[in-house]
Amino acid sequence: MKFTIKRNSFLNSLGDVQRAISGKTTIPILTGVKIVASEEGLTLTGSDSDISIESFITTGDDNADLTIERAGAIVLPARFFSEIVKKLPEDTMDIEVGMNFQTTIKSGSASYNLNGLDANSYPHLPVIDTQESFTLPTKLLKQVISQTVIAVSTHETRPILTGINMVISEGKLFAVATDSHRLSQRVVPLAMDMIDGDKTYNVVIPGKSLVELSRTIDEDVDSVEMMITENQVLFKTENMLFYSRLLEGHYPDTSRLIPDSASTEITFQAGTLLAAIDRASLLSHEGKNNVVKVAITPERVEISGNTPEVGNVKEDIAYVAVSGEPLEISFNPDYMKDALRTFAGAEIKVKFTTAVRPFIIVPTEDDQTFVQLITPVRTY
Amino acid sequence: MKFTIKRNSFLNSLGDVQRAISGKTTIPILTGVKIVASEEGLTLTGSDSDISIESFITTGDDNADLTIERAGAIVLPARFFSEIVKKLPEDTMDIEVGMNFQTTIKSGSASYNLNGLDANSYPHLPVIDTQESFTLPTKLLKQVISQTVIAVSTHETRPILTGINMVISEGKLFAVATDSHRLSQRVVPLAMDMIDGDKTYNVVIPGKSLVELSRTIDEDVDSVEMMITENQVLFKTENMLFYSRLLEGHYPDTSRLIPDSASTEITFQAGTLLAAIDRASLLSHEGKNNVVKVAITPERVEISGNTPEVGNVKEDIAYVAVSGEPLEISFNPDYMKDALRTFAGAEIKVKFTTAVRPFIIVPTEDDQTFVQLITPVRTY
Repeated sequence: MKFTIKRNSFLNSLGDVQRAISGKTTIPILTGVKIVASEEGLTLTGSDSDISIESFITTGDDNADLTIERAGAIVLPARFFSEIVKKLPEDTMDIEVGMNFQTTIKSGSASYNLNGLDANSYPHLPVIDTQESFTLPTKLLKQVISQTVIAVSTHETRPILTGINMVISEGKLFAVATDSHRLSQRVVPLAMDMIDGDKTYNVVIPGKSLVELSRTIDEDVDSVEMMITENQVLFKTENMLFYSRLLEGHYPDTSRLIPDSASTEITFQAGTLLAAIDRASLLSHEGKNNVVKVAITPERVEISGNTPEVGNVKEDIAYVAVSGEPLEISFNPDYMKDALRTFAGAEIKVKFTTAVRPFIIVPTEDDQTFVQLITPVRTY
Repeated sequence: MKFTIKRNSFLNSLGDVQRAISGKTTIPILTGVKIVASEEGLTLTGSDSDISIESFITTGDDNADLTIERAGAIVLPARFFSEIVKKLPEDTMDIEVGMNFQTTIKSGSASYNLNGLDANSYPHLPVIDTQESFTLPTKLLKQVISQTVIAVSTHETRPILTGINMVISEGKLFAVATDSHRLSQRVVPLAMDMIDGDKTYNVVIPGKSLVELSRTIDEDVDSVEMMITENQVLFKTENMLFYSRLLEGHYPDTSRLIPDSASTEITFQAGTLLAAIDRASLLSHEGKNNVVKVAITPERVEISGNTPEVGNVKEDIAYVAVSGEPLEISFNPDYMKDALRTFAGAEIKVKFTTAVRPFIIVPTEDDQTFVQLITPVRTY
């Protein structure tokens, strides 16, 4: 294998596939990046066996200025190799594989010789044996992930809750996550490619995979193609393949958890409420119980917290409108902060039923496609 | 105690004194910040008993808009209190101390009640019983610290080497640090205030204290006054006092360590050499021995490294001029990188005697007032 390429282009692709590479893997070859050179271009691969990422650079790519002199393949130690590429003195670099997988990296007057590994020993990527796919605008996909991933469980006691449940049905993508204390749900319309509109998919994708996916896909990529098989999902863009395993098991039915009526309703600017909760949480974080209280009357909305070890706090929160029954309710302020951040400063409605029933937060302008639910804390 | 103040001004002072406050102290009251309000203004104090910082805000300060309504003093939990002040909703805040050291912090509609501590229990600051002082331009003081602190030892086996030796004599400040593998030395002229020109001071100031001092003093403060007593040093600016304890014991005599002749001499741009050493060190960091080799002939200067576990590297380094005997010498690249960074990209001379004797680096334009010394590594 021998090729010449612009360092910046190569670093971009290397950075993408590195997201899948973990230093902690038990399979030594997976700490490496696989590089394959063919007539068409370069393919880089990284994997931690949960996630695999493949990135392509074609010989026609003007930014890459790629010249393949000899086809071939090698696996190089990912972290260390990428540090070298970052620090090379010139814009262009040459890579050549010699005897015994010895790989020479040259740029200007600097020359490195690295011990590579046989690319034939690198595990095979999952096979995606379906032609059926859906297309999602990149921006929308990233939004759906960021809005729901906050409610993913971080505990392995119920592994199925560490994923986001995605249901594709009737031309819509329905995404929901819950850690049993809170729930996030978003529905978006879907463009279907080569697929029977009546077909339904119901999968659970690990939250970690979706966070990495969101970080890996560039903002300037318009859309992402999604393909589902029995135990894998593949997200595809022009220059990248992103594979994730699916979680096994049945996701709990969450459809009846969201209350459909409210006895108390307040309209806020999400940013105003977030700042007030944030201030109150400073105090609750110092105590044993991380709880703040909101007292609602027709005249005022007051937030308060009492942590005897350090002190107490109270504040009148500015609101847009309030209606319904007076109420006192206590909750974990961190759940509320996570939820409020997903509204990006828009106007929101908070809908309560009683002090012991879950309450929901929805955008004022659309209470059908996006909802955050939080279970209150009993304080008596 | 009761006062009103602009939050930003207060936060600046609070940030300064917080540098001295450690969460890990064994004396609980030192996790707090002491606030004293008098007719003249506010005094904030933080201390970890090694370093103490006092910061003043006068009632005449336009930016602070300080109004003292009632004099008094309190100690508040530093980290937590500063988080609160940072997040208050309005530009201005009120602080009032009530019964049992209960302290109310108000801003807009937010109101915090904190449990304070009796300011009378706060330790007294060191007494500086000298009128003799020297004045140093802030920029120069920061430069001297950053140029010498790299060679300070981080091991407590010889505590005296964890400090910078500062000798004031004949109108000059002489600063030196060594960890016995390398040495940094800088000499600067000194403006003497109220001091007999013949008097000599010889102290060892903890490297950590000087790093904090450097971070605490604003660039826009012109000069710093320095006062020395038997076991304390005080650095004084218009609005701040910075106290540090001195290290006890005799600093080793370093004057004979610096070779006064050279058999091989190379002139480099510091940045060019730094980049090449940095590249070679990527490889040496992966091996057991963190060593790179430089081979000098009249025709070329080559750096190389060999770490059998991962590979090898070699590079011709661009130089300005080379003279003297051919030489091969090996050294720790990290010591070299630290040293080269202190020259801020200037042109430098590296002067070698033999492969087993220390070599020195000096600025081309002035080889008398600043020198970095590094001991090579024997590789045979």
